[in-house]
Amino acid sequence: MKIVMLAYPGLTPLDLMGPLQAWSLWPDAEIQVVWKTDSPIPTDTGMPIVPTHRFDNCFESPDILFAPGGTKPTIDLMSDLEVMAFLKDKGAKAQWVTSVCTGALLLGAAGLLEGYKATTHWAAHSYLEAFGAIPSEGRYVIDRNRATGGGVTAGIDFGLALVAQIAGDELAKTIQLAMEYSPNPPFNSGSPAEASEETIERVKRIFAEASS
Amino acid sequence: MKIVMLAYPGLTPLDLMGPLQAWSLWPDAEIQVVWKTDSPIPTDTGMPIVPTHRFDNCFESPDILFAPGGTKPTIDLMSDLEVMAFLKDKGAKAQWVTSVCTGALLLGAAGLLEGYKATTHWAAHSYLEAFGAIPSEGRYVIDRNRATGGGVTAGIDFGLALVAQIAGDELAKTIQLAMEYSPNPPFNSGSPAEASEETIERVKRIFAEASS
Repeated sequence: MKIVMLAYPGLTPLDLMGPLQAWSLWPDAEIQVVWKTDSPIPTDTGMPIVPTHRFDNCFESPDILFAPGGTKPTIDLMSDLEVMAFLKDKGAKAQWVTSVCTGALLLGAAGLLEGYKATTHWAAHSYLEAFGAIPSEGRYVIDRNRATGGGVTAGIDFGLALVAQIAGDELAKTIQLAMEYSPNPPFNSGSPAEASEETIERVKRIFAEASS
Repeated sequence: MKIVMLAYPGLTPLDLMGPLQAWSLWPDAEIQVVWKTDSPIPTDTGMPIVPTHRFDNCFESPDILFAPGGTKPTIDLMSDLEVMAFLKDKGAKAQWVTSVCTGALLLGAAGLLEGYKATTHWAAHSYLEAFGAIPSEGRYVIDRNRATGGGVTAGIDFGLALVAQIAGDELAKTIQLAMEYSPNPPFNSGSPAEASEETIERVKRIFAEASS
């Protein structure tokens, strides 16, 4: 199982880390975290991560292509022709084209979600239609060979679901137990349906600032 | 809020990334990811991360000290005198002494859990007593100024709970919504109480191999 996970300066690293940690327990999976160069790249947490491969030395035809999200850096990346060409090329060759959070907007900008059901971070859901995607509800959405997760932490559910889809339920359950994924959030505030209006407005302001 | 998060070669990076991503949304939090050197450090996922500070230039007296877990590298670290001295020193000065997963064993080995209720990854729970800790059930356990999370993904619940404890519920709810933490695992297999005997045995074999 050859996996290519895009990374880029300013990404939200938990988008990538959820599925990366899950997939690292997938026997025979070879995972490459790729960017234009080998150098450490900054993330929105302040802690840099290091790509394992470059665009020019990663798998030619991955089984899974994955894109993580972020705020302004993700939006900026949609007009980076080198990145768009990379996603188009790998997306055409990959068995699975996938994302978490606003990584879906990168896939969309590369023309990879046209006619597919997809999801993204709740605060960015309304942008999916601009790329010809069919905005869909769900912690993750699988439509043919497209698999998209919701915001940030949805990457864990998404990562396990894709393992189940490709390698079977038992491996996914094993990884879930190894990661002790028996979530118990201290509050019911993880989606706009659960959160208060005030909390929603507060988060919208945070994202508006982060995107400007 | 001055936060010092330990990192070390071979750690399980999602242990660190859950609370790091949550706390990066905490206004006025200054987060340092620290190790002996500045160089990129390998993780058990294959993707390196980069510490932001060293033991010798990080906060003298952090508000929060945090230790993440892993498998064999974590066990080996318990006999690293420099690391133990670092944890003892910062632990004595910190307002909060915290961990996720087997990071609790590091705190324990540094003498920081003696007489405190604590938790760790389910597969390592039986080791807590050896350090004078009081093994306790829970996705996370808060006893006076000690806060310990369960395995890997418990770091997200732990991270939000600590924000609530220190800065109040509203900020924790805001961060939860920003991270879209409305978990929906594809299976009920995240704890030994939920998983099948076969799955539990499979995970125990994986950890036995990873620890040898």
